Amino acid sequence: MRTFKFGIIGAGRLGKIHTMNLMRISGVKVKVIADPQLEAIKEWTDNLGIPKVVPDWHSVINDPEINAVVITSPTTFHAEMITAAANAGKHVFTEKPLSHDLASAKKVLALLEKTDVKVQVAFNRRFDHNYKKIRDFVASGQIGEIHLIRITARDPFLPNIEFVKKSGGIFFDFFIHEFDNIRFVTNSEVEEVYAGGSVRWDPEIKNAGDYDTAFAVLKMKCGTLCVIDSSRQAVYGYDQRMEVFGSKGRITSLNDRETNVELKNHETVTMDKPLPNFQKRYADSFNAEMQDFVRCLVENKTPLVTPKDGYKAILIAEAATRSARENRTIKIEELEDISSLLNG
Amino acid sequence: MRTFKFGIIGAGRLGKIHTMNLMRISGVKVKVIADPQLEAIKEWTDNLGIPKVVPDWHSVINDPEINAVVITSPTTFHAEMITAAANAGKHVFTEKPLSHDLASAKKVLALLEKTDVKVQVAFNRRFDHNYKKIRDFVASGQIGEIHLIRITARDPFLPNIEFVKKSGGIFFDFFIHEFDNIRFVTNSEVEEVYAGGSVRWDPEIKNAGDYDTAFAVLKMKCGTLCVIDSSRQAVYGYDQRMEVFGSKGRITSLNDRETNVELKNHETVTMDKPLPNFQKRYADSFNAEMQDFVRCLVENKTPLVTPKDGYKAILIAEAATRSARENRTIKIEELEDISSLLNG
Amino acid sequence: MRTFKFGIIGAGRLGKIHTMNLMRISGVKVKVIADPQLEAIKEWTDNLGIPKVVPDWHSVINDPEINAVVITSPTTFHAEMITAAANAGKHVFTEKPLSHDLASAKKVLALLEKTDVKVQVAFNRRFDHNYKKIRDFVASGQIGEIHLIRITARDPFLPNIEFVKKSGGIFFDFFIHEFDNIRFVTNSEVEEVYAGGSVRWDPEIKNAGDYDTAFAVLKMKCGTLCVIDSSRQAVYGYDQRMEVFGSKGRITSLNDRETNVELKNHETVTMDKPLPNFQKRYADSFNAEMQDFVRCLVENKTPLVTPKDGYKAILIAEAATRSARENRTIKIEELEDISSLLNG
Amino acid sequence: MRTFKFGIIGAGRLGKIHTMNLMRISGVKVKVIADPQLEAIKEWTDNLGIPKVVPDWHSVINDPEINAVVITSPTTFHAEMITAAANAGKHVFTEKPLSHDLASAKKVLALLEKTDVKVQVAFNRRFDHNYKKIRDFVASGQIGEIHLIRITARDPFLPNIEFVKKSGGIFFDFFIHEFDNIRFVTNSEVEEVYAGGSVRWDPEIKNAGDYDTAFAVLKMKCGTLCVIDSSRQAVYGYDQRMEVFGSKGRITSLNDRETNVELKNHETVTMDKPLPNFQKRYADSFNAEMQDFVRCLVENKTPLVTPKDGYKAILIAEAATRSARENRTIKIEELEDISSLLNG
Repeated sequence: MRTFKFGIIGAGRLGKIHTMNLMRISGVKVKVIADPQLEAIKEWTDNLGIPKVVPDWHSVINDPEINAVVITSPTTFHAEMITAAANAGKHVFTEKPLSHDLASAKKVLALLEKTDVKVQVAFNRRFDHNYKKIRDFVASGQIGEIHLIRITARDPFLPNIEFVKKSGGIFFDFFIHEFDNIRFVTNSEVEEVYAGGSVRWDPEIKNAGDYDTAFAVLKMKCGTLCVIDSSRQAVYGYDQRMEVFGSKGRITSLNDRETNVELKNHETVTMDKPLPNFQKRYADSFNAEMQDFVRCLVENKTPLVTPKDGYKAILIAEAATRSARENRTIKIEELEDISSLLNG
Repeated sequence: MRTFKFGIIGAGRLGKIHTMNLMRISGVKVKVIADPQLEAIKEWTDNLGIPKVVPDWHSVINDPEINAVVITSPTTFHAEMITAAANAGKHVFTEKPLSHDLASAKKVLALLEKTDVKVQVAFNRRFDHNYKKIRDFVASGQIGEIHLIRITARDPFLPNIEFVKKSGGIFFDFFIHEFDNIRFVTNSEVEEVYAGGSVRWDPEIKNAGDYDTAFAVLKMKCGTLCVIDSSRQAVYGYDQRMEVFGSKGRITSLNDRETNVELKNHETVTMDKPLPNFQKRYADSFNAEMQDFVRCLVENKTPLVTPKDGYKAILIAEAATRSARENRTIKIEELEDISSLLNG
Repeated sequence: MRTFKFGIIGAGRLGKIHTMNLMRISGVKVKVIADPQLEAIKEWTDNLGIPKVVPDWHSVINDPEINAVVITSPTTFHAEMITAAANAGKHVFTEKPLSHDLASAKKVLALLEKTDVKVQVAFNRRFDHNYKKIRDFVASGQIGEIHLIRITARDPFLPNIEFVKKSGGIFFDFFIHEFDNIRFVTNSEVEEVYAGGSVRWDPEIKNAGDYDTAFAVLKMKCGTLCVIDSSRQAVYGYDQRMEVFGSKGRITSLNDRETNVELKNHETVTMDKPLPNFQKRYADSFNAEMQDFVRCLVENKTPLVTPKDGYKAILIAEAATRSARENRTIKIEELEDISSLLNG
Repeated sequence: MRTFKFGIIGAGRLGKIHTMNLMRISGVKVKVIADPQLEAIKEWTDNLGIPKVVPDWHSVINDPEINAVVITSPTTFHAEMITAAANAGKHVFTEKPLSHDLASAKKVLALLEKTDVKVQVAFNRRFDHNYKKIRDFVASGQIGEIHLIRITARDPFLPNIEFVKKSGGIFFDFFIHEFDNIRFVTNSEVEEVYAGGSVRWDPEIKNAGDYDTAFAVLKMKCGTLCVIDSSRQAVYGYDQRMEVFGSKGRITSLNDRETNVELKNHETVTMDKPLPNFQKRYADSFNAEMQDFVRCLVENKTPLVTPKDGYKAILIAEAATRSARENRTIKIEELEDISSLLNG
């Protein structure tokens, strides 16, 4: 069996998760990790026995032995790194979003459509047991024609304000998973978006031009309505629920919990809270998405989440961001026109 | 103990429920029922032993022995009947909404503020065990400052098209309960509304200028966001859920079911569906609201749901209706200005 | 329509519940209540407008106008009262158990089999929404052949020790409902019983020769095993669960709760406890059993719970009591033989 | 860091699970696997890259490089293999039970108490998230003094009859996990046992002198009652529930499921069944118990589940087996006396 040699760009929380998942896949070798903060990751890479650690990502791209790269750097670098990797003939597994900027996302997409490298965008929810089951139910026709979708997506902890400033805003950073999820589950496209928000936790977030509490209402081309609500901080855990309502019924996905143990006492009945963070909640899906990416390399198949999917999610995030700013409904079409002009 | 003599105006589904609840309250006598379709209700009134049944509601208002009336006629008559009853010095228990029309609602409100009669608007959810518990939790500070509210309200059966045409539209007819509920649970006021909908079940509804699938996004004065989704038909039963999310946690009210029995077999695990209709789901609250109304008469207290509450709910319904029509956010203030002019 | 005149014997907790349920049934009149403690119930009977209250139960039986009696006196009086009532031609609704004593129960049964009066034993669980659903599932064959039954039955509060002393022991007083329930749900008979217990709450209970924590294992004639566990005090509420396991699956009935509201906060997730007592948990079934009894009188039908059912439950209770005392398995047959001899 | 070299004896379902879990632990090397059916496991061992596969387990024990062995052979070999391994100075991780035979279990125990090798018995439930949480709740005093324990343990598929014949009977093969679990969760000892069963699925099981449907009632030294019910086949999945009831409340552990997705349609509400088999249900605990065993080797600590624990579970299983055969309560003391005599 052929061995695929991987380089990892960025060894933050997700970089570490992807590295460890890759190392468990037979036929894969993690050859090099690039991260500007070598000292901070030294103990971790030593323990894992990573052969090579470098500060500069270019050396990963330029290494002729490397077959594929995993990009988990800050989003501002994504477009440049994907472009470089693709031009160097490396397959790419990249964290979302492709970019915070419609024009550069469009440009990356155009490039990738001309190359042969496999590119997978890390919308890991597509590989989650709950969402896959929803999609299967929908696809099998068990809820009939879809009428409504409800999503609640709430983070357990307020991010630090520096992260918020670079995040591209709550719609690019946080809602983008749900925007992709809607397309995945319904297998149809968003037509228009109305979004907004408020700041309830931290006035600094307002100063940064962002929200900590927000919603989006989307109309799909088929007429389906979708409402999403979100908060940057749910003190009871990572709250991730989805509901699809249709002519034959509804499917609801509730939160996963650590145990199925209930305590009943004189005062009340208690049970486990939702899982505390994305690392625990989506551990299996991170593993599954990477296994699937490697399978695509081995079997020469197209990944489940393509650059086009990455681009479409950005279009919706851009629409939501503009809607909130301008307090009006934004049609995806408007943005596609703009984006065409930009890349004319 | 003094006896209160009641007259019932309208003996449809709700008229019957209220009558039977009244008859179980000691100190209350149902003296007369007015309904234009005497034949249709004869068997029912005979069985109950109602002393008098008349086709014309005026004779109820004009009966000097009657202390209080229950109005469950179609909404188009509400304003006129309430006005006549109040002028005749009768206490009034009236079905919602006060009116489909902002101007006439305002006029009724102005009249009622000058009279001494007790008037209770039938927002029965305020008397429901689940919603009361939510309000108690909120009022006791257990979820801290409120950030988000999520409501799902779905009817089990599509109404017939004639009903839809006279209903005032989905926001006046169906969402209005939720609009009141938000004010009740949060004890604060709505600032602006964005609403919309689509027609997924029956094109006739579109021809009638209404929706069968709809949403509303509300911003409260305190900054709380509220998202409501709704359908005219949920094939699995009457779906009524509410969630209040705040700085200290979230409270969620799920559907009530007939039994707590679960069946697990080779194929799947099944349990009871939500209760099938509003009669079963809200039976206790219909009883409780009427008991509370009689208690207000006996103890000379102001009812929990006042005409002002009825009017405020209409303002929100009007805002939602206009928002959906004009595809823009409507501020409640705008309508209050209009309404002041109208009644100048 | 004919009116049935009822006399109530005993106005304790259950006497009051049955009286109020009777008064809501059309065609029924509660003419007289007999209770030795007239003062204690005066306010209650005055409020209800009961025409006559007497200290001596014989005058109820001797009243030629009375058609039916409801017996809720202490168990030691049951056999005598049922006998007197039946001899006087009154229909009887009697609280369980028929007796604490096999011989006298057998004697009552023999008498009743020769009379025409309707006698219903108050095994109210047969009228409960959850248990009825279980029986329906079983009867429709949805779980196939039954293999195992699990019952948990726990009271919310320790009874006072005087009650315990007169109760006939935990198997006669408390398990007897479950013994009837098993027969009802499975439609088959118990063959042998192994039972036992311990005293964990109050040593006085041990001194009284009883248990506060107990179990029974029953084998049915068809081979089904049944395990019951029980406590006199569950601090979290009235705990009533049943599970039927068979060749095609299992049916489980969980506890009913006051609301369906859940609170999630920083520490934990809480929801309502089980209902707090039998009055709330079985309110509907008390109502339903009385309606059904009246229906049997009106329509001249045999009640759902016959004296024979009452007797069979006592046989099982006696077997359990002996098993715990003698620490061995007791066959129902043994007792039937004894009981035949006794009544030769 | 030191490397521990392992030999695996037996490559059936559990042998494979333990091997793969070991291979993921750093500092561990699986050097050799012994299994009489070399052909049947060849593909699997090739894929994993196991260096050496042998038909005879003695060569594993005799290999001076091997530090520890994992024994997953049929139970009839356990005592002999453990003895040989311990005598050869190898650490031992052994599947349960130690033996089907009290005398030989006692002998093994006596030997092991004189050696320095670490021995862990594979009662994996002690490492399960749900049971650990129950134990933590109990240990922290949250349910007060324990009064009752309820366990339901049902397998998803009837084993083949050859397995049944060699299994030592349902109490040795299946209940033994629960017997250990009770001791683990309560931290106290069993005093006496009453057990029994019936055959509902397959008459061949009766011919083999065993049951497919069974129960055990245990009294603990502290007075706690424990009832266990069990079936060899639950068509809806692997059913594993435990409840501990005490003076301050109850803790209940329900089944784990694949997803948290619910489907509601016109007919019913469905959700996932319990996990289908022990491999899925206990995957994490198999992993955790092996990690803990290796940690004990590295840190020179006593394993959580000792040979004494293994022996005590056998005593209870033997008591249950005799109780069912003789239809009487068996005291553990009786068996301890016998066992002392046997090993004089």
